[in-house]
Amino acid sequence: MPAVKIVVDVMLKPEILDPQGQAVANALPSLGFEPARSLRIGKHVELELEAADEQAALEQAQTMAEKLLANPVIEDYSVRLG
Amino acid sequence: MPAVKIVVDVMLKPEILDPQGQAVANALPSLGFEPARSLRIGKHVELELEAADEQAALEQAQTMAEKLLANPVIEDYSVRLG
Repeated sequence: MPAVKIVVDVMLKPEILDPQGQAVANALPSLGFEPARSLRIGKHVELELEAADEQAALEQAQTMAEKLLANPVIEDYSVRLG
Repeated sequence: MPAVKIVVDVMLKPEILDPQGQAVANALPSLGFEPARSLRIGKHVELELEAADEQAALEQAQTMAEKLLANPVIEDYSVRLG
Protein backbone atom coordinates (compact mmCIF):
# COMPACT_ATOMS: atom_id res chain seq x y z
CA MET A 1 0.00 0.00 0.00
CA PRO A 2 1.23 3.53 -0.67
CA ALA A 3 2.49 5.67 2.21
CA VAL A 4 0.49 8.84 2.80
CA LYS A 5 2.08 11.81 4.58
CA ILE A 6 -0.11 13.36 7.23
CA VAL A 7 0.37 16.33 9.55
CA VAL A 8 -1.40 16.61 12.90
CA ASP A 9 -1.14 19.88 14.82
CA VAL A 10 -2.15 19.80 18.47
CA MET A 11 -2.73 23.02 20.44
CA LEU A 12 -3.98 23.68 23.94
CA LYS A 13 -7.52 25.08 23.79
CA PRO A 14 -7.60 28.89 23.90
CA GLU A 15 -9.03 28.94 27.44
CA ILE A 16 -6.21 26.72 28.80
CA LEU A 17 -3.08 28.47 30.08
CA ASP A 18 0.07 27.80 28.04
CA PRO A 19 3.09 28.34 30.33
CA GLN A 20 5.62 27.36 27.65
CA GLY A 21 4.23 29.89 25.20
CA GLN A 22 4.01 32.49 27.95
CA ALA A 23 7.67 31.95 28.85
CA VAL A 24 8.75 32.45 25.24
CA ALA A 25 6.50 35.52 24.87
CA ASN A 26 8.01 37.03 28.02
CA ALA A 27 11.53 36.40 26.75
CA LEU A 28 11.02 38.29 23.47
CA PRO A 29 11.64 41.89 24.66
CA SER A 30 14.81 41.02 26.58
CA LEU A 31 16.16 39.36 23.42
CA GLY A 32 15.58 42.50 21.38
CA PHE A 33 12.34 41.44 19.67
CA GLU A 34 9.08 43.36 19.47
CA PRO A 35 6.55 41.88 21.91
CA ALA A 36 4.09 39.40 20.38
CA ARG A 37 0.37 40.06 20.80
CA SER A 38 -0.05 36.33 21.47
CA LEU A 39 2.19 33.28 21.31
CA ARG A 40 1.12 29.69 21.96
CA ILE A 41 3.10 26.50 21.52
CA GLY A 42 1.73 23.10 20.61
CA LYS A 43 2.84 19.86 18.98
CA HIS A 44 3.47 19.30 15.29
CA VAL A 45 3.33 15.62 14.34
CA GLU A 46 4.45 14.43 10.89
CA LEU A 47 3.61 10.82 10.10
CA GLU A 48 3.53 8.43 7.17
CA LEU A 49 0.73 5.88 7.16
CA GLU A 50 0.25 2.96 4.83
CA ALA A 51 -3.31 3.14 3.61
CA ALA A 52 -5.38 2.31 0.55
CA ASP A 53 -5.85 5.98 -0.27
CA GLU A 54 -5.57 9.47 1.20
CA GLN A 55 -9.07 9.40 2.64
CA ALA A 56 -8.38 6.17 4.55
CA ALA A 57 -5.09 7.58 5.88
CA LEU A 58 -6.80 10.77 7.03
CA GLU A 59 -9.47 8.78 8.89
CA GLN A 60 -6.78 6.64 10.55
CA ALA A 61 -4.85 9.77 11.60
CA GLN A 62 -8.03 11.39 12.88
CA THR A 63 -8.59 8.44 15.24
CA MET A 64 -4.94 8.52 16.34
CA ALA A 65 -5.20 12.23 17.08
CA GLU A 66 -8.37 11.76 19.10
CA LYS A 67 -7.14 8.77 21.11
CA LEU A 68 -3.37 9.17 21.35
CA LEU A 69 -1.83 12.41 20.10
CA ALA A 70 -4.19 14.91 21.69
CA ASN A 71 -6.10 15.12 24.94
CA PRO A 72 -9.47 16.35 23.65
CA VAL A 73 -10.42 17.67 27.08
CA ILE A 74 -7.77 20.40 26.95
CA GLU A 75 -6.42 20.29 23.39
CA ASP A 76 -7.68 20.99 19.87
CA TYR A 77 -6.13 19.28 16.88
CA SER A 78 -6.14 19.52 13.12
CA VAL A 79 -5.37 16.72 10.68
CA ARG A 80 -4.31 17.38 7.08
CA LEU A 81 -2.28 15.87 4.26
CA GLY A 82 1.42 16.70 4.60
CA MET B 1 -0.27 48.44 13.48
CA PRO B 2 -2.28 45.42 12.38
CA ALA B 3 -1.64 42.03 14.00
CA VAL B 4 -0.42 39.35 11.60
CA LYS B 5 -0.92 35.67 12.43
CA ILE B 6 2.16 33.54 11.85
CA VAL B 7 2.82 29.83 12.24
CA VAL B 8 6.31 28.45 12.90
CA ASP B 9 6.81 24.67 12.77
CA VAL B 10 10.02 23.32 14.28
CA MET B 11 11.15 19.74 13.63
CA LEU B 12 14.30 17.85 14.56
CA LYS B 13 16.45 17.36 11.46
CA PRO B 14 15.85 13.97 9.80
CA GLU B 15 19.25 12.63 10.91
CA ILE B 16 18.60 13.46 14.59
CA LEU B 17 16.91 10.78 16.70
CA ASP B 18 13.42 11.68 17.92
CA PRO B 19 12.72 9.62 21.07
CA GLN B 20 9.29 11.20 21.63
CA GLY B 21 8.12 10.31 18.14
CA GLN B 22 9.65 6.86 18.48
CA ALA B 23 7.76 6.25 21.71
CA VAL B 24 4.46 7.20 20.09
CA ALA B 25 5.23 5.08 17.00
CA ASN B 26 6.01 2.09 19.23
CA ALA B 27 2.75 2.55 21.13
CA LEU B 28 0.54 2.41 18.01
CA PRO B 29 0.24 -1.38 17.56
CA SER B 30 -0.55 -2.04 21.22
CA LEU B 31 -3.35 0.54 20.99
CA GLY B 32 -4.90 -1.20 18.01
CA PHE B 33 -3.54 1.09 15.27
CA GLU B 34 -1.71 0.10 12.12
CA PRO B 35 2.02 0.79 12.50
CA ALA B 36 3.19 4.09 11.02
CA ARG B 37 6.01 4.04 8.47
CA SER B 38 7.46 7.09 10.22
CA LEU B 39 6.32 9.43 12.97
CA ARG B 40 8.17 12.49 14.21
CA ILE B 41 7.07 15.13 16.68
CA GLY B 42 8.08 18.76 16.72
CA LYS B 43 6.79 22.11 17.93
CA HIS B 44 3.95 24.12 16.42
CA VAL B 45 4.09 27.80 17.37
CA GLU B 46 1.19 30.15 16.62
CA LEU B 47 1.94 33.82 17.16
CA GLU B 48 0.46 37.22 16.42
CA LEU B 49 2.91 39.98 15.65
CA GLU B 50 2.23 43.67 15.22
CA ALA B 51 3.92 44.72 12.02
CA ALA B 52 3.49 47.18 9.18
CA ASP B 53 2.57 44.38 6.75
CA GLU B 54 2.71 40.63 6.29
CA GLN B 55 6.20 40.71 4.80
CA ALA B 56 7.59 42.58 7.82
CA ALA B 57 5.88 40.16 10.21
CA LEU B 58 7.28 37.15 8.35
CA GLU B 59 10.81 38.58 8.51
CA GLN B 60 10.42 39.25 12.24
CA ALA B 61 9.17 35.67 12.81
CA GLN B 62 12.00 34.27 10.69
CA THR B 63 14.54 35.94 13.01
CA MET B 64 12.67 34.71 16.10
CA ALA B 65 12.65 31.16 14.73
CA GLU B 66 16.37 31.29 13.99
CA LYS B 67 17.43 32.80 17.33
CA LEU B 68 14.82 31.64 19.84
CA LEU B 69 12.26 29.05 18.72
CA ALA B 70 14.56 26.59 16.96
CA ASN B 71 18.07 25.33 17.51
CA PRO B 72 19.36 25.46 13.91
CA VAL B 73 22.12 22.97 14.70
CA ILE B 74 19.64 20.14 15.22
CA GLU B 75 16.29 21.54 14.07
CA ASP B 76 14.68 22.70 10.84
CA TYR B 77 11.87 25.23 10.89
CA SER B 78 9.30 26.67 8.55
CA VAL B 79 7.61 30.06 8.85
CA ARG B 80 4.31 30.87 7.15
CA LEU B 81 1.23 33.06 7.50
CA GLY B 82 -1.33 31.52 9.88
